[in-house]
Amino acid sequence: MEWDSLISDRVRRLQPSRLTAIFQMGDGQDVISLAGGVPDPAFLPVERIREATDTVLSERGGEALNYGSGQGVLELREFLAARMSTDFMKIDPENIIITSGSQQGLDLVGRVLFDEGDKVLVRNPTYIGSINAWRSYNLKWEPVFSGGESDDLDRVMQPRPKLMYFVADYENPTGEMLSEARRRSLVKALIQYQAAVLEDDPYGQLRFEGERIPTMLELEAQHTGTGRIGGHVIYAGSFSKVLSPGLRVGWLVADKPLVARIMQIKQGANLCSSIFDQFVAYEASGDGFLDAHILKLRGWYAERRNAMIAAMERYFPPEVTFTRPHGGFFVMVTLPEGMDSIELLKRAVERGVVFIPGEAFHIREGGNNNLRLSFSRYKPELIDEGIRRLAEAIKEMIAERV
Amino acid sequence: MEWDSLISDRVRRLQPSRLTAIFQMGDGQDVISLAGGVPDPAFLPVERIREATDTVLSERGGEALNYGSGQGVLELREFLAARMSTDFMKIDPENIIITSGSQQGLDLVGRVLFDEGDKVLVRNPTYIGSINAWRSYNLKWEPVFSGGESDDLDRVMQPRPKLMYFVADYENPTGEMLSEARRRSLVKALIQYQAAVLEDDPYGQLRFEGERIPTMLELEAQHTGTGRIGGHVIYAGSFSKVLSPGLRVGWLVADKPLVARIMQIKQGANLCSSIFDQFVAYEASGDGFLDAHILKLRGWYAERRNAMIAAMERYFPPEVTFTRPHGGFFVMVTLPEGMDSIELLKRAVERGVVFIPGEAFHIREGGNNNLRLSFSRYKPELIDEGIRRLAEAIKEMIAERV
Repeated sequence: MEWDSLISDRVRRLQPSRLTAIFQMGDGQDVISLAGGVPDPAFLPVERIREATDTVLSERGGEALNYGSGQGVLELREFLAARMSTDFMKIDPENIIITSGSQQGLDLVGRVLFDEGDKVLVRNPTYIGSINAWRSYNLKWEPVFSGGESDDLDRVMQPRPKLMYFVADYENPTGEMLSEARRRSLVKALIQYQAAVLEDDPYGQLRFEGERIPTMLELEAQHTGTGRIGGHVIYAGSFSKVLSPGLRVGWLVADKPLVARIMQIKQGANLCSSIFDQFVAYEASGDGFLDAHILKLRGWYAERRNAMIAAMERYFPPEVTFTRPHGGFFVMVTLPEGMDSIELLKRAVERGVVFIPGEAFHIREGGNNNLRLSFSRYKPELIDEGIRRLAEAIKEMIAERV
Repeated sequence: MEWDSLISDRVRRLQPSRLTAIFQMGDGQDVISLAGGVPDPAFLPVERIREATDTVLSERGGEALNYGSGQGVLELREFLAARMSTDFMKIDPENIIITSGSQQGLDLVGRVLFDEGDKVLVRNPTYIGSINAWRSYNLKWEPVFSGGESDDLDRVMQPRPKLMYFVADYENPTGEMLSEARRRSLVKALIQYQAAVLEDDPYGQLRFEGERIPTMLELEAQHTGTGRIGGHVIYAGSFSKVLSPGLRVGWLVADKPLVARIMQIKQGANLCSSIFDQFVAYEASGDGFLDAHILKLRGWYAERRNAMIAAMERYFPPEVTFTRPHGGFFVMVTLPEGMDSIELLKRAVERGVVFIPGEAFHIREGGNNNLRLSFSRYKPELIDEGIRRLAEAIKEMIAERV
């Protein structure tokens, strides 16, 4: 039987992702992959996780290996609620639902909110995982905060979007921050238009320099002063970049009635997220370990960011520009107008370096002369070598244009 | 803002599950819960899991804590492929996709196949998790193999259903087996009508007595003899009942092009399942441990099944009948016609025992005089006490009817 004769129309119209092939290029070959947003395995706290599993299994025994709460292990939700609470924002464990990575948070929010053809506002470019998670809904994606004119919130809020979505801190793919002024004007507009935003925050704690900007979740709580959490903001957090992505532990913070809706959908999706991983993440994070580890990660990743910026300054021709992120994993490079980053990728592969072409992150056409580079995976020397190879490919293409 | 004003129509029409309240009745109260299909935590191999995590972290280090394959850890897929292969059926690791529990397998199959209003054939009653996972599609559920007349496959196959779904071994909720004759006639009908079945098999290895009946996946491979796997059958397996549910490791076996479609959807759903849990499940299962553990589980659960049957024979009035399962976790009880198991539940709760009313498993009306009991969670003495309490409530209700 041809299974395609039974496949849903929604799925049949999906194009296979070209990125899978790009990610696999780095696998086991003599290739420096600046493509994936993957931590260096050497940065993952193996010994701490081992101690945590020992403690969890000794103290909790079978409970840690059994079915558990669909909302998530209570101790972990209490830990996260206390950690995220501020003077202006008291988060209750009942505001939190644990997800199988923040990617499941994106999926669940989409499943709860979206109807076919809904309007969604994003920065353009945006995180490719949101496009992936939500592409079966045929959303009407519209850009906001992407250029000068799109700061006109009154215009983009009519008709009311179903959702706005941002990686506000050290954005994937650009590495940029959504400014505090934009966050504040957004929160006001959310209240005025009774609209909603999903704030996806995997990188916020990986700050190398600059002042911390409050999350939109906090700014909303400050602004309203009602004590209610998540009146217009859903927040997605993750242990993936600060502890371990392989554990797949993320969380959503949301208004309590919305948490109940999300749990209803989550039960059908996977009953509960790994109880073992939740206890391990909780146990490993405790006694100040998580904060101490994040401090180390900031130093380690900052060194790699510095290495990448220095290499780009050294090797790239002056007509190539790039972002200078203050945190996170990513840099976005802009080639001269008219140069195609997919053509560049072919040449880069021949030289043993890969990246993600910018068009993958764009909601419509555009981004053809952009590329996303990640500095998370390799030591500074390899980052330098990767950028050197990439620069060669760029210079070759530029030379051919003249 | 009222989030309900943004909720999808699909979600708004969902009724909150009454079962959540029933499951919670067992939590921390003086209640014997015969409701949930939850293993006894004492049966979970805590020490073996501890050894496995130590080995995994020593030998694989950060790899076990990082992002990994969306299809699933290769070693685990190889292990499962070898374990499931027979003389007639050679399963390739490429036929397998690891899921976050088999519940995610059900969800993903639904997301790949279903359009609104599709026809789906099931035994009635059926597993409540399938109803939960798929209820947003407004499926047309139709019964098959549920009574005499519905064995007429020619009738139920027209128009062609999008999917058939069975827990063929020690069915949840009845504890019954789908007979080999029915499986064989079904496989022939699948080929004749170019139709598909999802065979959900969490309990198949928990056989206490009786001959093993081949899976539909095997019977199809035998019947066609082509070497192709999953031409009409999707198989869902799980470590939840034989190793640990808290790890959330399940898998699907399917035709390779279908695996590719499912992976496409899974990437948006959670990128990959817990890499840590997959390595731990693989490591813990090796060196014959899984088979040895399953042998023990068979003995332990059989003892509890025996205790429940003996107690029902001792305490229940003769007008109450029940199934006598040869494996798995569940018994289905039938009260005299016209008696309502929801009314019975209220009285049972007062006596400190809970169960799931049969109507929860039924695709339409029906099952009002049925209840599902699980013998997985408690020691024989507590099972005996639970059934004694339940019998009191039943006798009280029967006495009032006269």
